[in-house]
Amino acid sequence: MPVVSFKVVPIVGEKSVSKYVVEAVKVLKEEGLEPIVTPDTTVVSLESLEKVGVLLERIHERLKGMGVDRIVTIVMVDDRRDKPLRDPLEMVKKVEEGLQGS
Amino acid sequence: MPVVSFKVVPIVGEKSVSKYVVEAVKVLKEEGLEPIVTPDTTVVSLESLEKVGVLLERIHERLKGMGVDRIVTIVMVDDRRDKPLRDPLEMVKKVEEGLQGS
Amino acid sequence: MPVVSFKVVPIVGEKSVSKYVVEAVKVLKEEGLEPIVTPDTTVVSLESLEKVGVLLERIHERLKGMGVDRIVTIVMVDDRRDKPLRDPLEMVKKVEEGLQGS
Amino acid sequence: MPVVSFKVVPIVGEKSVSKYVVEAVKVLKEEGLEPIVTPDTTVVSLESLEKVGVLLERIHERLKGMGVDRIVTIVMVDDRRDKPLRDPLEMVKKVEEGLQGS
Repeated sequence: MPVVSFKVVPIVGEKSVSKYVVEAVKVLKEEGLEPIVTPDTTVVSLESLEKVGVLLERIHERLKGMGVDRIVTIVMVDDRRDKPLRDPLEMVKKVEEGLQGS
Repeated sequence: MPVVSFKVVPIVGEKSVSKYVVEAVKVLKEEGLEPIVTPDTTVVSLESLEKVGVLLERIHERLKGMGVDRIVTIVMVDDRRDKPLRDPLEMVKKVEEGLQGS
Repeated sequence: MPVVSFKVVPIVGEKSVSKYVVEAVKVLKEEGLEPIVTPDTTVVSLESLEKVGVLLERIHERLKGMGVDRIVTIVMVDDRRDKPLRDPLEMVKKVEEGLQGS
Repeated sequence: MPVVSFKVVPIVGEKSVSKYVVEAVKVLKEEGLEPIVTPDTTVVSLESLEKVGVLLERIHERLKGMGVDRIVTIVMVDDRRDKPLRDPLEMVKKVEEGLQGS
């Protein structure tokens, strides 16, 4: 199952874009997901890749409603087809354990 | 309308991954798109963002059928909500004209 | 100053790549940085963009030493030229405050 | 050796960003490189990864000089440590041959 991150970059004449990121995270929550906000992306665990398109459309439509006409979004998909729904925080824990074990 | 690029990175024990990229491009063609292959991504012009999820699912399913259990795909979306279907090659032309004009 | 994230994807015949991510994070620590590990990338605050090249070279050289001949790394740079060294965790806090304030 | 792409996204109050992309490509040319402009990124073949940091710094400094205070740049590195300087256009050719051969 895929773990997917979104980096939403609105092309706007303000240097602070956090209000737009806040709305993008809200959309993910409204879709019943549990987004993890990191300094560069927002990460969710999904049950299907098709959902990625639905989420993109809703996020961009929300920002359009805020007056943003051009949006660049980077989506990073990490898909393991041999595993059930994955917990993104487990992935962090595994790396932290590796760091301590050395 | 969005211009979207896909960078498909299969986690496999071969250094040459072009056969997987070829299959990903084939999936895009089968969906009626006109993919532009570049040295790092494959670019398409889409009529909707929802299509991104469908394409991701089909590409990953195709690679799964080739024995790939883990796939990392980077999707870059450049979405202009104020414009109709865009020609990605026009974007290149505009930059080339800018380079010559200087 | 730039906040920079690294997503290191080794092309290897193992589905679990966390041991390689652990080494990449170690390199960042050895360079005196304070990497923040997230489910999809590792984030650092840098004093200069030139450092990005040095870090890439050391990370890839480390993985080469582990037997990896092909590495795909995605680097996302968020650079504010009007601000001093930034705290990536402040960026997360700002989004979380925006979520609560709504 | 690495093949590296740059996607430069200036946070500015104009929807057309091609004039900034033109300047980024000019910087690459001034550095003696042969940039390949694609619809979503600009690709170069480099002799070392350290060069990535130098290029990022020069591109962002150039855009700062044009009045841009916040720049998001996505760098995608495809590094083969077992191969000499690579021709990005050969990578495209290989995929196109794979498509015709099927």
